[in-house]
Amino acid sequence: MPSINPRRLLNDLKQLRTFGACGMGVVRPALSPIDIESRRWLVGRLIDAGLDAHIDGIGTVFGRSRSKGKALLIGSHTDTQPTGGWLDGAMGVIYGLEIARAFRESTEGRDFAIDVASWIDEEGTFAGFVGSRSFCGEPVADIVARARNREGQAMSEALRAAGIADTPLAHMEADRYVAYLEPHIEQGGRLEAEGKRIGVVTSIVGIVELRVTFRGQQNHAGTTPMEIRKDAGAALIRFAGALESEFRSLAGPQTVWNIGRVEFSPGSASIVPGMAELVLQFRDPDAARLHALEDKVMTLARSASAAGSIGVSVAPFDDPVAPTVMNDDLQGHIARAAEQHAPGAWMYMPSAAGHDAQVIAGRLPCCMLFVPSIAGISHDFAEDTGEDDIALGCQVAATAAQSILRDGIRHK
Amino acid sequence: MPSINPRRLLNDLKQLRTFGACGMGVVRPALSPIDIESRRWLVGRLIDAGLDAHIDGIGTVFGRSRSKGKALLIGSHTDTQPTGGWLDGAMGVIYGLEIARAFRESTEGRDFAIDVASWIDEEGTFAGFVGSRSFCGEPVADIVARARNREGQAMSEALRAAGIADTPLAHMEADRYVAYLEPHIEQGGRLEAEGKRIGVVTSIVGIVELRVTFRGQQNHAGTTPMEIRKDAGAALIRFAGALESEFRSLAGPQTVWNIGRVEFSPGSASIVPGMAELVLQFRDPDAARLHALEDKVMTLARSASAAGSIGVSVAPFDDPVAPTVMNDDLQGHIARAAEQHAPGAWMYMPSAAGHDAQVIAGRLPCCMLFVPSIAGISHDFAEDTGEDDIALGCQVAATAAQSILRDGIRHK
Repeated sequence: MPSINPRRLLNDLKQLRTFGACGMGVVRPALSPIDIESRRWLVGRLIDAGLDAHIDGIGTVFGRSRSKGKALLIGSHTDTQPTGGWLDGAMGVIYGLEIARAFRESTEGRDFAIDVASWIDEEGTFAGFVGSRSFCGEPVADIVARARNREGQAMSEALRAAGIADTPLAHMEADRYVAYLEPHIEQGGRLEAEGKRIGVVTSIVGIVELRVTFRGQQNHAGTTPMEIRKDAGAALIRFAGALESEFRSLAGPQTVWNIGRVEFSPGSASIVPGMAELVLQFRDPDAARLHALEDKVMTLARSASAAGSIGVSVAPFDDPVAPTVMNDDLQGHIARAAEQHAPGAWMYMPSAAGHDAQVIAGRLPCCMLFVPSIAGISHDFAEDTGEDDIALGCQVAATAAQSILRDGIRHK
Repeated sequence: MPSINPRRLLNDLKQLRTFGACGMGVVRPALSPIDIESRRWLVGRLIDAGLDAHIDGIGTVFGRSRSKGKALLIGSHTDTQPTGGWLDGAMGVIYGLEIARAFRESTEGRDFAIDVASWIDEEGTFAGFVGSRSFCGEPVADIVARARNREGQAMSEALRAAGIADTPLAHMEADRYVAYLEPHIEQGGRLEAEGKRIGVVTSIVGIVELRVTFRGQQNHAGTTPMEIRKDAGAALIRFAGALESEFRSLAGPQTVWNIGRVEFSPGSASIVPGMAELVLQFRDPDAARLHALEDKVMTLARSASAAGSIGVSVAPFDDPVAPTVMNDDLQGHIARAAEQHAPGAWMYMPSAAGHDAQVIAGRLPCCMLFVPSIAGISHDFAEDTGEDDIALGCQVAATAAQSILRDGIRHK
């Protein structure tokens, strides 16, 4: 069994953290100068590990094993949120690096092929998941041509500034891979709440985002009697209240929903709102439940419209994301490795956040492994995971990688 | 009985409308160059009517009758909202001008004193009601020194630009006045809905404005399970829903309330709001009911706080305005004049908007008379009143003015 080296793993993770370090956190948005610097460092570490590594034409770091036979692809992302944590994405990439080294050093693993990737821009600085999408063969030229970051910089300009605009794109080699493994921090508090140390991911939840708009009649809030008002804000409040109770009764154990944005227009204390808007997001691993929830939103909107003076309309706020099921056999490999290294201290769970694995699942059997996030915090400088948990997760991933490469999977 | 001249009245109103005309509406914010130009025109019309008139050091146009004996002060404002109507304020001032002329032309009225004022900045371009406050003897120097309009212009600079910064302030002469009369458009739809042409104002409603703040914990809307969220936005929705039903049961016939402003922070679709805020305004002619409503807000906030994970706090959003009762005897004078000129077509009603009369009521017995607003629209270019109603309102005011000056009032 390939044994990972916890000290080396943590050293490399802490080394990577220095690129863009900001207090406990990291500011390393995709294709920023510090991100490119960290990618050059990562290429060097992968080459030291015996891989052929480079930065491709879109910014993805890709390290290819020289071993023959089917390969396991391990990856995640090293770009961060505008104010991000040190482990979100980075941990999975450094796991890949450490597992590649552990395999090379072990008798059983020496001939197995581990490829390692850090997909560019999982966090959507320019265009979310664009690295894994490009690797999977999606045509991304138009996306790259249009994408700009918050500061207005064009993605094409950032690629030129990084000196990689003319580098070829890495693409998935046909028939090379047995599977894709993405280790990641949980980013939530379930493992901690359950006292578990490893999560075996069953699926990545689907996401629906809707904008619900209420149109009434703006008016003077003193002189307009209550009974003749067409108050778009009051209609929104009633709608959101009804939605809350309907969603509670439709919700499954993994369903989450959020009204994260509300606007009343014109937004004055003494004017009855003529227009009001909310943005509703909901997530579930089950596509049928997502449909049922969306149907409920439409029904509530129709009945609010029918009730009288307020027009209610529903439109997508962002493209829906379908739920992605992780491969059953691969889940079994991770579960057995978890039971071996942390008996009784692991659980099956869905991922409530999106990951590159949901893109790659269109081409390869995929699996994910989670380690606990302290206090469930992520996308924040305070994001952290215990060093023992980081080391344990890497060893579980290494053991699972070995059994996947040795035994393969029966059902794709 | 002094008879007003409807054609002359409408001509002057339409002449005033040309200053800042914008389609059907008027843009004539206090102390703007066009407002000053209109004030110079108004001074000329008051002098033509036999008054001693000038613009005082804060911008108020004040016209003083040369007649002996107690005077009736008639006034309102000629400044407008940023995008205002042609009658809001302006009508009451031109009523004063026309009534002064009608008195001078009549045998019964010739010796009675009618003073006329257009108070500066009722609409709060720099500082709401500052003209009537100054006239009543409030020290306004500090307010003037600090006030700026939306564009950032200092009020002191606007006064200098108008060439009136060094003019003395007009102040109320002790013992001169029997009463203050402010004719105005209704700005609501009650008269129209009831088929009435004259409103006798019983009181000006009090106003309370509160900011209610909800503090929870910002978090990831995917990975944070529903049961451990501290969702400030959801708490706001529950609070606003409960408030609506509690206010409905506490409300009197004149109570109005409005949630005109809502903000969720940080305002992202995929982040559970850590903070949420609403601004609640409510109005009622009865101070006791305003207190009961405010108590209810506090009770709801305390019980929402006590319910658990969300901190709820309530703070004033603006200074409260106490309800102002119009003088009973003066109401009787207007009611009798209304019954004389429009039998059965008048009603008692509170004013749901604020007016200079609420300031002057601290010094003089006050009364107000309303004419209907077509479709209840005001603070909008579309604001309008039928010409017959404009003429009727002026004649009712003139007849009431005569009986007030002739008979006086028994109870101040």
